[in-house]
Parts: sequence; C-alpha cells; structure tokens
Amino acid sequence: MRVALDAMGGDYAPEATVEGAVAAVKSFEEIEVYLVGPEERLRPLIPADLGEKIKLVSASEVIEMGESPVQAVRRKRASSLVRTVELLKEGQVDAAVSAGNTGALLAAASLYLGRIPGVERPALMAQLPNPRGRTVLLDVGANVDVKPHHLAQFAVMGSIYARDMLGIASPRVGLLSIGEEETKGNELTLATFPLLRKLPLNFIGNVEGRDVFNGRADVVVCDGFVGNVLLKAGEGLVQALEAMLRQELARNLPARILALATFFFLRNFRKRLDYAEYGGAPLLGVNGVVVAAHGCSRGNAIKNALRVAVEAVRCDLVATITKGIALLKREKGVEVS
Amino acid sequence: MRVALDAMGGDYAPEATVEGAVAAVKSFEEIEVYLVGPEERLRPLIPADLGEKIKLVSASEVIEMGESPVQAVRRKRASSLVRTVELLKEGQVDAAVSAGNTGALLAAASLYLGRIPGVERPALMAQLPNPRGRTVLLDVGANVDVKPHHLAQFAVMGSIYARDMLGIASPRVGLLSIGEEETKGNELTLATFPLLRKLPLNFIGNVEGRDVFNGRADVVVCDGFVGNVLLKAGEGLVQALEAMLRQELARNLPARILALATFFFLRNFRKRLDYAEYGGAPLLGVNGVVVAAHGCSRGNAIKNALRVAVEAVRCDLVATITKGIALLKREKGVEVS
Repeated sequence: MRVALDAMGGDYAPEATVEGAVAAVKSFEEIEVYLVGPEERLRPLIPADLGEKIKLVSASEVIEMGESPVQAVRRKRASSLVRTVELLKEGQVDAAVSAGNTGALLAAASLYLGRIPGVERPALMAQLPNPRGRTVLLDVGANVDVKPHHLAQFAVMGSIYARDMLGIASPRVGLLSIGEEETKGNELTLATFPLLRKLPLNFIGNVEGRDVFNGRADVVVCDGFVGNVLLKAGEGLVQALEAMLRQELARNLPARILALATFFFLRNFRKRLDYAEYGGAPLLGVNGVVVAAHGCSRGNAIKNALRVAVEAVRCDLVATITKGIALLKREKGVEVS
Repeated sequence: MRVALDAMGGDYAPEATVEGAVAAVKSFEEIEVYLVGPEERLRPLIPADLGEKIKLVSASEVIEMGESPVQAVRRKRASSLVRTVELLKEGQVDAAVSAGNTGALLAAASLYLGRIPGVERPALMAQLPNPRGRTVLLDVGANVDVKPHHLAQFAVMGSIYARDMLGIASPRVGLLSIGEEETKGNELTLATFPLLRKLPLNFIGNVEGRDVFNGRADVVVCDGFVGNVLLKAGEGLVQALEAMLRQELARNLPARILALATFFFLRNFRKRLDYAEYGGAPLLGVNGVVVAAHGCSRGNAIKNALRVAVEAVRCDLVATITKGIALLKREKGVEVS
C-alpha cells in the first residue's frame, strides 16, 4: 500500500515527517511511503537501507501554516502539500497524509479529488476515548462557519462511519450544545435540531461537552470551530493533568511508591488519550483517503497518521461512505441539503 | 454576610441546595443563607439548630431548566430564582446564588439589577486550573451568539478581574481560536482580533484550546457557546480519566500498590479539577454579585458556590469592575462597543 506524505507539512517538518515515515515503514509491513518535498533536503535524512520503502517525490514549494488556504493551493501548485494530494488523484498512491495547513489540505483535496456525491462540505473527524470505547467527533476543524444542513451532512457521514467502520449497529448521534433541552443552544444548533430529527438517524438530541468523553453518544456533531477548540482543550487538559500529577507526587508521601505507580499510569494514559497515538483524522467526504495530522505532530504522531491512512484504505472507507450516502438518499428519499 | 440561595435551582434541588447551605453555614463563619423556595418543602430539611444561620424566604413557583429564560423571568415573578435576585436588589442580601436555568438567572439579574455602566452583555466566567495557577475563561454560557464588540467587553472585564482580584499585574489576554495565526478562526474571531489589538490590554493574540489549560494566557475570551462546551468537556474528560484509571488499575500489577497510590491521586485531582470545588462562576457585568452554579450541582458544589459569592462580596468585585471600566474609558478614551 502506497501512502504519500507531505514531508514539509507541520511545525517540525521535515525532521518529524521523515522520522515518522521511517518508523512507519519499520512498523507496518505493507506500507510504502512517498515522501513529497525538496529532495536535497530530505535525502540526507533517510537511512540508506530504506530506499525501497521510502520514495522521494520532488516538490520545491512549501505552504506555510498562516497562508490563506484556497489562495495557497491555487498559487503553489509545486508545493509539497498540493503534490501529495495530486499523487493520490493520479493514482500513484492509495492515500495522502499531511500535517500542514489543514485548510489548504481540505482545499487541495476538494479541488483535486472532488467531493463524494451528496456531500456538500467535507469534515474532519476525531475519535476520542471514553471509558467504554470511542466517540466520533466531527467536524474538528475543516469548516468553521457552517449552516444547519452542513451539520446534518456531518451527522450522516459520522453515523455511517461509526456503523460501517466501527461496527456499531445503530450509532447514537448527538448534537453538541450547551444543554440537553431542545431550547438550549445557539442559532446554529437551534436550527439544526429539527433537521436532525427528520433524518433516518438514531438522533438522541442535544449532548453537552461532557458527553464527548463519557460515551453517551457514538457520534457527536458540531461545527469545526467548536470541535477544534474542544479537541485541543482535551489534549491540553491531559498535559496539564500530567504536570499536576507530578506536582502532587513531589508534595506527598510516600513519594517513592507514588512515583513508581505514576510511571505506569502516565504511560497508559498517554496511549489512550494522547492525540499522537491516533495520529490524525481522515477528511470525511472527499473522494479519496486524505488524513490531516496535527500541525505540531512529532515523529510518533506522523507514524500513526500513516497508520490511520493505511487502515482507511484497507477498510475501503471512501467507497463505504459513498455507498452509504447514496443508499440513504435512494432508500429514504432524504436530501440532507 | 447575607447570601440568597435559590433553593429550587438545579437538578438535585431542593435536597442538594439545602445540603449545600447547611455545609456552608457550618464551614464559613460569617455567612447567613437566605433559602428561597416553598417553605413547607424546605423547613423539614433544615436542622433545627441552624435556624439563625439559615432563613427561609417564601417563593411558590419554580423556573424549569428548559423554559425560555426571558419569558420565564417575566411570567414567574414568584419563582425562587426571581425572588433570589430580588432580595439582592432590595438590599436584603449581599449576593445571590442559583444553580437553576442560567439564562433565566442572567435575564433576572439584567432586569432587576441592571448592568454595570459600559458593559453591554454580562458574561459568565470560570477559573480553570493550570500547572502554574488559574486561567480565567469567559464567556462560559451567558451569551451564545455574540458580536466582536461583546468579546472585546469580555476581554476588558476578564482582564480587570484577573488584575484586581487575582493580583496579576498585566494579565495576558488571549482570543480563543483554532490557530495562533491572525488568519485562523471563524467570522467572529477574525473580526474580533483587530478590535482587541486596539484596546489597552496585554493582548497576546489567538490562543488555542490547549492553551486554556497550560497557563499561556491569564484570560481567555470566547463566546458563551464555545466556552460552555469547553468547560463541560473538561469536566467530562476528568471523569473519563478517573474511570479509565480505575480500569488500568484493575488490569495491571502490582494492583495493590497502584490502588493505594491512586486513591491519593484521585482525591487530589478532584480537588484541583472538579468543578464542584469551585462551585460556580459570577456573572461579570451585572450590577451585583450573582453566582451561577451548575445545574447538576450536588451539595458540595452549592456550598462552594456560596463561598464564591462570599469572596466576591468581600473583594468588592462589582465596585472594582465598575471603577476599572470607567477608568479605562476615561483614561484611554476607548469605547469597547
């Protein structure tokens, strides 16, 4: 399986991206990584014995994090991000991964791959741990200003993903708001609530911030601004908890036992909660497997973003969503937009 | 010091509110609680020996959580929530606390107490722990659909609060967004950024979700929908962490040592992170000390909401903000709206 990786995407590129690619080809047997970026900069970073598994694809330009996404994609055709997506369009790879400008990745994917029929706005999804399993949260950053029918489309995509990819027979879909009552919310959620009720979903109504982590819903739908803030706040809280835990340890006795115990706790915590373990979120709704990793991804996060891409291809994610949405529209006669 | 408590506010009222009032008068020497609600229901719950410290004020109606705030406040003049605020307006108490419908509390406070001059929209504030201290987050639910100049007012109020109440000389104010770059955000934050830059604040630009918990800013400004979701997600995450920690314990050896250690961890975690320890957030910008506690407050949360009210009165919070905003406008010639 061939995965293109934007070698210049993210705050720690290209060192972190190359490190992630190296770790991925060592860990995942079937993967070949197409590293996209300036060859002269990348070649010295790649161990000689991995030449068969890591291929270099030349790209001279870089899209910066602060650039306007659509303009950057249009102007920088030779950028590593655009070339990464183009490789997928051309059929040279099976999936694309970038930790670069998420907006630009979305723009490039929409421009070059197009959207799945019936999907008006692609969404970024995250899978958050809860004590009983995982909660799918979307959108987590692809669409910051959305309309009610966009949230409805996210609900449909998320529900299909949870049903067909996570094996949940009738995923409970919740609308993220500030109270369970139908009357609680902002203009967007108040207008979305009746729309979701009409769709053939297992819509459980409004859910609150706490429900994202307690397993009350399988799929939680929100606009990309709220989802992104929530996701990053969760990461920040875990980091703060670890720091505070260490402070507690230093203060309390018996410190030795606690320190030993904490070591195991923290390691397991991190694995279940650290975003780096999940690596990235696929763009749901674009016509191809495109995984957006965090801008601040280190090597381990990049490696796991590559793993997410491999799994999405293996599960035929795009075809599943395409069929699911088509079936939904045909069988139920429901248009979500 | 006299604090009115809406005995019928919150999911577990009146048992939890009475429990909180009893705990408060036992813990805080100077406090007298005016319990507002149906006397016949409340009297049997109050220990006979606390009759001097807990006074009953009759109120026959209850505003439910799902009611439209403004309508409920107008129609239910005899409700426990409205009467609680009225006691403050009448000067019978020094502060008011309710765990009821937050929107209704805000509406009642605005209607009966009015706003501090210069403040267009009162805000709900929370203080979140970070490894180095506390981060003031506002708005956390009072205003779900806001304009840029409202966020600017929140920034001014939050900055004054952090400076005068928390003793931070030049509070770092951040605008909550989805990227540090000025170009990242939604329509609201993109329009707010240049406004905040013009104000005489120590504005450090956009901050992300993770920065709410890492101490990068002293004051984080956002709309009430985002702030409420973030706050509740943080609580939910801590609860999920505790549940997962217990799962880890059951799985790993040496379980005994870990279990012992965990006991101390969790207890200390809770104290620093559980919202119940902070109890409630004052409505910033209304002309009186009004503390909104969570709808799901148990006795301990109610007790601590009463403590927050006592501290706000003791620190002369309302006068400080009034002076601060007046000074800001006079000295700098800056109108935030």
